[in-house]
Amino acid sequence: MLSLFARIFVVTFCLCHLPITEQQYTPDWASLDSRPLPAWYDESKIGIFIHWGVFSVPSIGSEWMWWQWKGNSPSANIVAFMNKTYPADWTYADFAEQFRAEFYNPDEWADILAASGAKYVVLTSKHHEGFTLWPSKYSFNWNAMDVGPKRDLLGDLANSIRARTNITFGLYHSMFEWFHPLYLEDKQSGFKTQLFPNMKTLPELFEIVQRYKPSVIWSDGDWEAPDTYWNSTQFLAWLYNESPVKDTVVVNDRWGSGVPCHHGGYYTCSDHYNPGHLVTHKWENCFTIDKNSWGFIRTSGVNDYRSIQEILMEIVTTVSTGGNVLINIGPTSYGKIAPIFEERLRQMGSWLKVNGEAIYSSVPWKYQNDTINSNVWYTASKDGQSVYACLLVWPNSTSEISLGAPVSSASTTVSLLGSSGGPLKWRSGGASGGIVIDVSSVKIYSLASDWTWVFKLQNITPKKTTRKFKFHGKQYE
Amino acid sequence: MLSLFARIFVVTFCLCHLPITEQQYTPDWASLDSRPLPAWYDESKIGIFIHWGVFSVPSIGSEWMWWQWKGNSPSANIVAFMNKTYPADWTYADFAEQFRAEFYNPDEWADILAASGAKYVVLTSKHHEGFTLWPSKYSFNWNAMDVGPKRDLLGDLANSIRARTNITFGLYHSMFEWFHPLYLEDKQSGFKTQLFPNMKTLPELFEIVQRYKPSVIWSDGDWEAPDTYWNSTQFLAWLYNESPVKDTVVVNDRWGSGVPCHHGGYYTCSDHYNPGHLVTHKWENCFTIDKNSWGFIRTSGVNDYRSIQEILMEIVTTVSTGGNVLINIGPTSYGKIAPIFEERLRQMGSWLKVNGEAIYSSVPWKYQNDTINSNVWYTASKDGQSVYACLLVWPNSTSEISLGAPVSSASTTVSLLGSSGGPLKWRSGGASGGIVIDVSSVKIYSLASDWTWVFKLQNITPKKTTRKFKFHGKQYE
Amino acid sequence: MLSLFARIFVVTFCLCHLPITEQQYTPDWASLDSRPLPAWYDESKIGIFIHWGVFSVPSIGSEWMWWQWKGNSPSANIVAFMNKTYPADWTYADFAEQFRAEFYNPDEWADILAASGAKYVVLTSKHHEGFTLWPSKYSFNWNAMDVGPKRDLLGDLANSIRARTNITFGLYHSMFEWFHPLYLEDKQSGFKTQLFPNMKTLPELFEIVQRYKPSVIWSDGDWEAPDTYWNSTQFLAWLYNESPVKDTVVVNDRWGSGVPCHHGGYYTCSDHYNPGHLVTHKWENCFTIDKNSWGFIRTSGVNDYRSIQEILMEIVTTVSTGGNVLINIGPTSYGKIAPIFEERLRQMGSWLKVNGEAIYSSVPWKYQNDTINSNVWYTASKDGQSVYACLLVWPNSTSEISLGAPVSSASTTVSLLGSSGGPLKWRSGGASGGIVIDVSSVKIYSLASDWTWVFKLQNITPKKTTRKFKFHGKQYE
Amino acid sequence: MLSLFARIFVVTFCLCHLPITEQQYTPDWASLDSRPLPAWYDESKIGIFIHWGVFSVPSIGSEWMWWQWKGNSPSANIVAFMNKTYPADWTYADFAEQFRAEFYNPDEWADILAASGAKYVVLTSKHHEGFTLWPSKYSFNWNAMDVGPKRDLLGDLANSIRARTNITFGLYHSMFEWFHPLYLEDKQSGFKTQLFPNMKTLPELFEIVQRYKPSVIWSDGDWEAPDTYWNSTQFLAWLYNESPVKDTVVVNDRWGSGVPCHHGGYYTCSDHYNPGHLVTHKWENCFTIDKNSWGFIRTSGVNDYRSIQEILMEIVTTVSTGGNVLINIGPTSYGKIAPIFEERLRQMGSWLKVNGEAIYSSVPWKYQNDTINSNVWYTASKDGQSVYACLLVWPNSTSEISLGAPVSSASTTVSLLGSSGGPLKWRSGGASGGIVIDVSSVKIYSLASDWTWVFKLQNITPKKTTRKFKFHGKQYE
Repeated sequence: MLSLFARIFVVTFCLCHLPITEQQYTPDWASLDSRPLPAWYDESKIGIFIHWGVFSVPSIGSEWMWWQWKGNSPSANIVAFMNKTYPADWTYADFAEQFRAEFYNPDEWADILAASGAKYVVLTSKHHEGFTLWPSKYSFNWNAMDVGPKRDLLGDLANSIRARTNITFGLYHSMFEWFHPLYLEDKQSGFKTQLFPNMKTLPELFEIVQRYKPSVIWSDGDWEAPDTYWNSTQFLAWLYNESPVKDTVVVNDRWGSGVPCHHGGYYTCSDHYNPGHLVTHKWENCFTIDKNSWGFIRTSGVNDYRSIQEILMEIVTTVSTGGNVLINIGPTSYGKIAPIFEERLRQMGSWLKVNGEAIYSSVPWKYQNDTINSNVWYTASKDGQSVYACLLVWPNSTSEISLGAPVSSASTTVSLLGSSGGPLKWRSGGASGGIVIDVSSVKIYSLASDWTWVFKLQNITPKKTTRKFKFHGKQYE
Repeated sequence: MLSLFARIFVVTFCLCHLPITEQQYTPDWASLDSRPLPAWYDESKIGIFIHWGVFSVPSIGSEWMWWQWKGNSPSANIVAFMNKTYPADWTYADFAEQFRAEFYNPDEWADILAASGAKYVVLTSKHHEGFTLWPSKYSFNWNAMDVGPKRDLLGDLANSIRARTNITFGLYHSMFEWFHPLYLEDKQSGFKTQLFPNMKTLPELFEIVQRYKPSVIWSDGDWEAPDTYWNSTQFLAWLYNESPVKDTVVVNDRWGSGVPCHHGGYYTCSDHYNPGHLVTHKWENCFTIDKNSWGFIRTSGVNDYRSIQEILMEIVTTVSTGGNVLINIGPTSYGKIAPIFEERLRQMGSWLKVNGEAIYSSVPWKYQNDTINSNVWYTASKDGQSVYACLLVWPNSTSEISLGAPVSSASTTVSLLGSSGGPLKWRSGGASGGIVIDVSSVKIYSLASDWTWVFKLQNITPKKTTRKFKFHGKQYE
Repeated sequence: MLSLFARIFVVTFCLCHLPITEQQYTPDWASLDSRPLPAWYDESKIGIFIHWGVFSVPSIGSEWMWWQWKGNSPSANIVAFMNKTYPADWTYADFAEQFRAEFYNPDEWADILAASGAKYVVLTSKHHEGFTLWPSKYSFNWNAMDVGPKRDLLGDLANSIRARTNITFGLYHSMFEWFHPLYLEDKQSGFKTQLFPNMKTLPELFEIVQRYKPSVIWSDGDWEAPDTYWNSTQFLAWLYNESPVKDTVVVNDRWGSGVPCHHGGYYTCSDHYNPGHLVTHKWENCFTIDKNSWGFIRTSGVNDYRSIQEILMEIVTTVSTGGNVLINIGPTSYGKIAPIFEERLRQMGSWLKVNGEAIYSSVPWKYQNDTINSNVWYTASKDGQSVYACLLVWPNSTSEISLGAPVSSASTTVSLLGSSGGPLKWRSGGASGGIVIDVSSVKIYSLASDWTWVFKLQNITPKKTTRKFKFHGKQYE
Repeated sequence: MLSLFARIFVVTFCLCHLPITEQQYTPDWASLDSRPLPAWYDESKIGIFIHWGVFSVPSIGSEWMWWQWKGNSPSANIVAFMNKTYPADWTYADFAEQFRAEFYNPDEWADILAASGAKYVVLTSKHHEGFTLWPSKYSFNWNAMDVGPKRDLLGDLANSIRARTNITFGLYHSMFEWFHPLYLEDKQSGFKTQLFPNMKTLPELFEIVQRYKPSVIWSDGDWEAPDTYWNSTQFLAWLYNESPVKDTVVVNDRWGSGVPCHHGGYYTCSDHYNPGHLVTHKWENCFTIDKNSWGFIRTSGVNDYRSIQEILMEIVTTVSTGGNVLINIGPTSYGKIAPIFEERLRQMGSWLKVNGEAIYSSVPWKYQNDTINSNVWYTASKDGQSVYACLLVWPNSTSEISLGAPVSSASTTVSLLGSSGGPLKWRSGGASGGIVIDVSSVKIYSLASDWTWVFKLQNITPKKTTRKFKFHGKQYE
């Protein structure tokens, strides 16, 4: 059946009529990878990821609920829950009507995001379920304007973010859809036919770029098929050469099987990627506050949520080793950011207000993790004048903190960010080098917060080492 | 925005790779119109039209409810009803979940249709709302398998019809969709772009033909754009040359603005087309039992339904003048043919059991309407041996029925179909010709039904006339 | 648990403070049965029964659906349907929200009822499910104002009936409720406690009588407990002595186990009670047009509905033998009388327009069923001047109708009601008596309808018989 | 209309048949107030209040949503929201179907409550809406078994609490219901009729006491009518004399207008009652974590929730002045305690683990609030050996904490609960008395938590004062 249809309808991706003049990048990875990452991205360090969709209605299992329910090896729990709670013939599409977003106030979201200290945001324009949060022309009656919220959820957030904050707006987009029949047909053909990318993925990508001008395209759902199936390089060439966001847009690396961690913009490599050592190609650690899900899950208890301490640990270790963090929240189907998420975001914001200079626009230092105190991670100011030692755990039963990596000089000063107590006493670490900070004068009342303390070290040098590295074009030695 | 997309994606309708051998018809009207209509269609005379879809859920106004509610000039009644009865943000798509078809038993439908005496059936595969009654690959989550009935309504009916009856199975299909964004985009371009036919209409038509092998394609929704926009002639050439139904399929004439009543298969010209005189190109009178709607309407009272007398009047006048009737019923959203429809169908079936020889496989006679008695319409047997005078109204206060068109001979016989009373007495109409039938011997108890009586006249000739006509290739004079 | 509660709360039915003056009837059957039936009831002959309630939503099985689903021996079909179609935890109460009555127009109902020729109507104020169609104070959130229709369905119909027609308004009321916990508690006590009648049944009965002033109380659901449990005689004494409808109200006989067919107002004895011989205590034959259910059933086909011929048979046999008919229709949950019901009612109305004089205000004749022609049933005019021979089946293959019961005289006249043909010829039946009517002059075109013909006989006498009877106080011999 | 009904049905509250032997208390306040409060209650100090009901479905405004929407002066916001979001004819009862409690796991609730350190729990068996969380015989189809959750929410929690924890189980119960028609009828009569208490309030109270044996009856909704209307004293006499919980049950004071703060068990006086000075009749401060509502509100942001610091402030000030706290949470309609509530409860539990000895079974000290440091509140151990100075705010820029109320002796010791640092240095406050605690040795790492620190003072005496008071029968001077 397919063959006949394919024989008659030939959908051609054709670049032949494009004027040649703007063609800075050609549709191959060598050329595309040569594009420098726009600077705003590395300087931002902290983004918020938002997973919202029809999966927010059942709000069980995870945002993969549809697949957990109807995929190749269904979850017994999900299946049992659905059998108990819904009619026998319930389908995932039936949930859409209950996605009402009746309390959705994108201004409020923008304000919470601003209060978190994040510098960019990435919203799921469309997840693997295929439901588009914008009124796509390619998703008739399976989008947020026609069903459920009856509203351009995506556009409304873009407007609020841009009107009220300095946060950069970006979009997540899933290339594949678990159950789209055209995708399944292509898959059955061994991805020899390209009905789905040509009739769905690519038209959609053009549509969101042209209509919403996102500064991030966070691609996903690429893994089952090669980039040649998706026509990824052609899309990126258009994006970099011609699109309205060609100068500012940043993309990740999920553009086809084998591509992540090798090509594209910044690397994500895997979810919750946090290698623990310096990675010199710009990368991102996306992780989610609810440890079990990217979408909102009604059954999660407080212990399923990362504490602010755990979140700060991710931030400090990631930024220290060259990454950005993209911290995920999952709003509810009724359009609110649940208080537990809001609390985490505001806690992070209050911490960044005090300690932001160690994070934003920082660069990795010669050392990342201290050589003696494994609870300390370093960042440095761009100008090299300050080194920030971020302490994850306050020492128990001692008033001294010993650091192995910094070598002091006569003019060395040490202070605790956010403390009103003035510079701290310190002494040289002796023969083995390093310095010892005396925190006995730090008063309970003088601490700005109870988590992750940052010591600002000035006029110190790194302990000698043979290790060298380049980071964003700069040679470190 | 469009131009860029169109510049990059060129969807080409390409016939270049087709083997030339089977190409009996070329994609132009001259060639396509030359195809003889398969004989089964004219012989069938009586079909049943079934309008079923999401519109069966609101079941108000008519099957155009969506347009009456949200189109260019909304109906005040519909708008008021919706405001009163549904939430402010209700959309048409929200109705789909309530289209449950929980009592749908296609075997039962098949049996009712068989009892009606109809010889073919035409089901709305997709109406202007775009909801497909089959699980189309091109209508993800807006089809009867994904939403609402959770079932291949179309395929199940096709199977039951074919397994239990001799009824021929056909499909209605709407080319346009009121609110499909790709259609609206094409429309805005003055139909210069063809996104919609290439991504939706044509793929769908291929899909239903190949999957369900319908013997009728009853096209509709063509009128806003020319056949060149729809690529109708290419589709028909494929249908006639190559499709699995190329030898048996019959189509109507709604293939683009200006096409109806001029090209295609049989002519429909307009809804409820019944010109009252012989039309020699095969045509069809489609009309609906609920006078106000093709879809089921919950507010219709018994007086909104055509009586069996009115239905028989349509049948007799249409068949007499060369047409077929396609009599419409609208099933409920829960999947039943309402008793009032079933009653009409069974009444028709009981009438046809007695009088079917005047209808099935009949041909028009020299005269259609009698020259004296305007309540009489004629048909003839194919072999010309019998002429049937169909009487719509039994005469009041007389026992004689005078007919002007037939000329009697010595061997003329007259009988009343279904009567046990034997041949009737008659006499010549005298100077002006014709015959006079004496019905005084017809007893109350001997009448098979109370509606539309058929007198079978044998060995009569038509009154002389200069009128000649050809019908399906046969010369009448 | 019960005993303690019962010990403390003693709900007393107390008549001690009532002024004695109005006490025409005492609360015992001897006194209550002595009340003459108000004349309007017998004269009316034809009533319409309306079963409407939450059961109209599932609209499967019958109006006993709840019991069929959850009662002592559930119907496998109903259980299977519910499991397939609804969530596992669905309850009957959940249906109430879907009882929307969105198209309910009581004026329209009144007009249809008026067109049917019925003279009274009986609406289910509350069926065994307990859902009250009026906003009862004793059924908080389980009534038509609080849930579902959001409207006083009962009051609105009463108003329309009274404003637009001469139809007398009455109410059906179920004493018990299948699943009311207080009823179940009383039942478990062997009906020693009376929580349910005192807190529910009797307050409700007072409420509907005082608020809506019904002229019929059609009691039901009495059979599991004695009248002493229900306090029926006290209620009736109040109804007859004091209530606002004390002069006009008519009640039936379902007031406790053992009571039906023995005490109360008119007798119903059983559903569809039609004994076939004269019963001299006034009685009623309640039967339903949908043979399988009193409530509307979505799965009923046209063959499940009684034909107009069957309905007229019930009317003629019932009225002839001293009964009234109460013909039941079941409206839909959306508030319409389905066309198939409307058709039957209008057919009946058209018949009564012609033949009403044989029905309304008629009295039984000396004979009911003819002694020779079993298809003939007699009624007589109150003044005895006319006898009506109602013929159910037109004779086949003869033009003569022989009757055994009437004895002719010289001045005897015979005519066919509704016929324009004038008096009919007749002759004496000869030795064995009776008369023979010649119908050869009755023309097809002169019949007013195709069902149940009524011959009006004047100046005839009944054949001699030793049989005597009293009917409504009048001696027949 | 009423008068007639009232005249006939006299519902009598009758105690005449009760055996006199057990009659310890008579149904008057003098007798009832003489009953000693069971000791468990005062010793428990901390209870959790749970507001759950149909109001948890709209989850807007507050648990008074129905009244805010349909009461005497509706909230414009609520009305606008409902108009925007629900059909025009939506009623409050319609929400019940959406109260599904699909994730309700009472074992999980019990474990969270146990982790909070609370010693009793009070669940809303029925709020002013009238929806009963148990399958009441007096609330047919308006209870959690028949509609919505389809489960005995109340009984299941009672079982889990009793099986898994040492927490005492209690019930809230609203006497009146905003919109119950019988209540409204009584109200219109100036509370001369008692239909509602006799047919609803009292039967319900008996039912929950007998079926669930709660140790607290937290009465509410009493204020519009006098206790004589409610028959409160009779109920309490039965409760104290005869009920299955007569020895352990504790009640509050909301038993009729004018009664609160004057009669009954412990006093609540008003919501969030916290007078700031010692009150010698046992009282309770009920307050809610979401400052705006007792029921769960979907629109509440994190700033609407009391912080753990605020909660501890309430605990410390209340217990110091003789009260218990009843801290409210509002579960969601799907049956979960939202993470933000769970976090607060677990924070409280962790604090009580360290500081519980200052709270549980404590008694007021001679002083409540310190005379110098207004951030310090006192409690004392029952045996008088220890006095607890609870410090709400850690001093800024000083290492000394001065207290005015305690007078030191040579053997005085001071320690910080939860600190591993051993006894603290202190000195006498000098001429004006009091003591000065030196906290310079308290290390950051040695603090068990960041909120409300408790200093345990031993071998101190209160500063001389003429103030005397009795508390629970004990003379303080």
